[in-house]
Amino acid sequence: MRTTVGWQATGSGRALRRAPLRRRDLRADDLAVRVDYCGVCHTDLHAVESRDGAADEPLVPGHEFTGVVTATGSEVTRFTAGDPVAVGNIVDSCGACAMCRAGQENFCHSFPTLTYGGTDRHDGTSTQGAFSREYVVRDRFAYRLPEGLDPAAAAPLLCAGITVWEPLRALGVGPGTQVAVAGLGGLGHLAVKLAVALGAGTTVLSRSPGKAEDARRLGAHGFVVSSDPERMAEARGRFDVLIDTISAPHDLGPYLSLVAMDGTLSLLGHLGPVTVEALDLLVGRKKLSSAGSGGSPATAALLDFCAEHGITADIELLPSARVNDALDGLRRNEAHYRYVLDLSDLD
Amino acid sequence: MRTTVGWQATGSGRALRRAPLRRRDLRADDLAVRVDYCGVCHTDLHAVESRDGAADEPLVPGHEFTGVVTATGSEVTRFTAGDPVAVGNIVDSCGACAMCRAGQENFCHSFPTLTYGGTDRHDGTSTQGAFSREYVVRDRFAYRLPEGLDPAAAAPLLCAGITVWEPLRALGVGPGTQVAVAGLGGLGHLAVKLAVALGAGTTVLSRSPGKAEDARRLGAHGFVVSSDPERMAEARGRFDVLIDTISAPHDLGPYLSLVAMDGTLSLLGHLGPVTVEALDLLVGRKKLSSAGSGGSPATAALLDFCAEHGITADIELLPSARVNDALDGLRRNEAHYRYVLDLSDLD
Repeated sequence: MRTTVGWQATGSGRALRRAPLRRRDLRADDLAVRVDYCGVCHTDLHAVESRDGAADEPLVPGHEFTGVVTATGSEVTRFTAGDPVAVGNIVDSCGACAMCRAGQENFCHSFPTLTYGGTDRHDGTSTQGAFSREYVVRDRFAYRLPEGLDPAAAAPLLCAGITVWEPLRALGVGPGTQVAVAGLGGLGHLAVKLAVALGAGTTVLSRSPGKAEDARRLGAHGFVVSSDPERMAEARGRFDVLIDTISAPHDLGPYLSLVAMDGTLSLLGHLGPVTVEALDLLVGRKKLSSAGSGGSPATAALLDFCAEHGITADIELLPSARVNDALDGLRRNEAHYRYVLDLSDLD
Repeated sequence: MRTTVGWQATGSGRALRRAPLRRRDLRADDLAVRVDYCGVCHTDLHAVESRDGAADEPLVPGHEFTGVVTATGSEVTRFTAGDPVAVGNIVDSCGACAMCRAGQENFCHSFPTLTYGGTDRHDGTSTQGAFSREYVVRDRFAYRLPEGLDPAAAAPLLCAGITVWEPLRALGVGPGTQVAVAGLGGLGHLAVKLAVALGAGTTVLSRSPGKAEDARRLGAHGFVVSSDPERMAEARGRFDVLIDTISAPHDLGPYLSLVAMDGTLSLLGHLGPVTVEALDLLVGRKKLSSAGSGGSPATAALLDFCAEHGITADIELLPSARVNDALDGLRRNEAHYRYVLDLSDLD
């Protein structure tokens, strides 16, 4: 076994603690990656907060990271030591089902292996995430980090980025499309940048009028204060695609009213049960969809697209020892727009 | 005013009673239609059952009918007396909003005028439906009934037919598409016939194994007993489009599991609030939609398509004096597959 160190939730309190960590010896198709930067995702917060005291085993979160290959398994040909790489929230899948064959490993029929909190398909151990200095990953689920992308600001592309990229692409967003992005956080700010770069008319919907300037800075062409019924009424039926990144439960009715005929509201932020009035879909033949994560071809395409258009996340970079501050900031909704941990302080 | 006779819900009991009825004098763009056949729709049942005693004015239901033009207003050019026509559940709309201009009067921003229970846009009176011997309708909302379609069996095309036709067309159903139809009633049996004629692989989902033979007779290529978890598991992810015509509230989870990646479940039967697990949409990037009624170009196209393919509803034809038997049959879910009233007994 290989040894490293990471930030661990033990279940006996909310704070993550520095702890030694084992990684598997490299299999033939494995890479060892020195983790340099890892984004802090809402999922990490949920994972930490849902720990059930002593009942759960310790967990290291973190599933959107960049780093450098330090060693390769005997059959790895796509990477060599020194290559800059990026890894997201999926590190394995069955490879055989229709979804895997279609490059949508995120929908693997036997469920993809998650970067942490998953179960390794070979040895049955629980996967431990990238709030740590080293990660061992199957080569198929590592992506070459294109030149020119800042590795710290690129890390959130691997979860937040791909989560918004997949629906934008699947829904055909491009020149001539009108896109609305509800909620301007980690997901939302990347949705704005990507929709703008895809050539779509892009409008931010937010309860906070103070976000209008930031929306413009991110490239948005329009801004609607979602708590203002008059502005919402003016925007009725205007958007072919509405990317809803609001993480709290909320009434979908007002947002569906903004969707154009045959348009789609894609839920990305809040993934519990949602209730919708069938008539809000019927009138205008609108669609409700959802998305999360992405497959490997789309992830590679996203990284290329971001390199071409100079897109990364807007981040606050913190030494990893401040991981608990990052989680607190996320709890208070204070991130601008994504906390990224610099893991070099673990050396 | 013109006088006719119809079957009226008075609110003082469930039974409809024969009663005299007034129709407006013809406006310049009006037709008078002798109603020959009118289908009995679930909406009629709801309208009758939701009458609030003496508080409501009397109501004549009926909104899918065929008949013959008997008189025309001074500016009508498309029809003359003697023309066979068909009318559905919309008899007017604003004509000016984006939806009307797009030929989707069913989504008119100021709400379309319904065939009964609506409010006339000129004189403010309540519209009264086609369980009566005469209807007066604006010419734009009457459709020429193509030759070769039986006028009794064609009547249900104007509501049940257009309701299933619109999503089939909007979702691109045709050769190479796999369609499932959940629920084999008035809507469902027409969805099967239309999907088959459009060239799609068509499968019926029903709790009743006894409906398998009928499904085949209607042209379906497959049949899945929806109450059998094994058969449902086998059908997982198989359908690009699932037309859900089940009229009672039901769990959408099992039905969404049958939808293919990027496929759509279209709710037509139960139009109240529906709750869906976002994850059931997320995994496979599926869409939830709804539909009802249709615009005038689509209605005309449907009638042409049905004439070309010899499609009408499977009906049970009753003299209109048996309207209460038809409503009772609908309450007991006994229709095969649509009751149609013959209004000639009102002469």
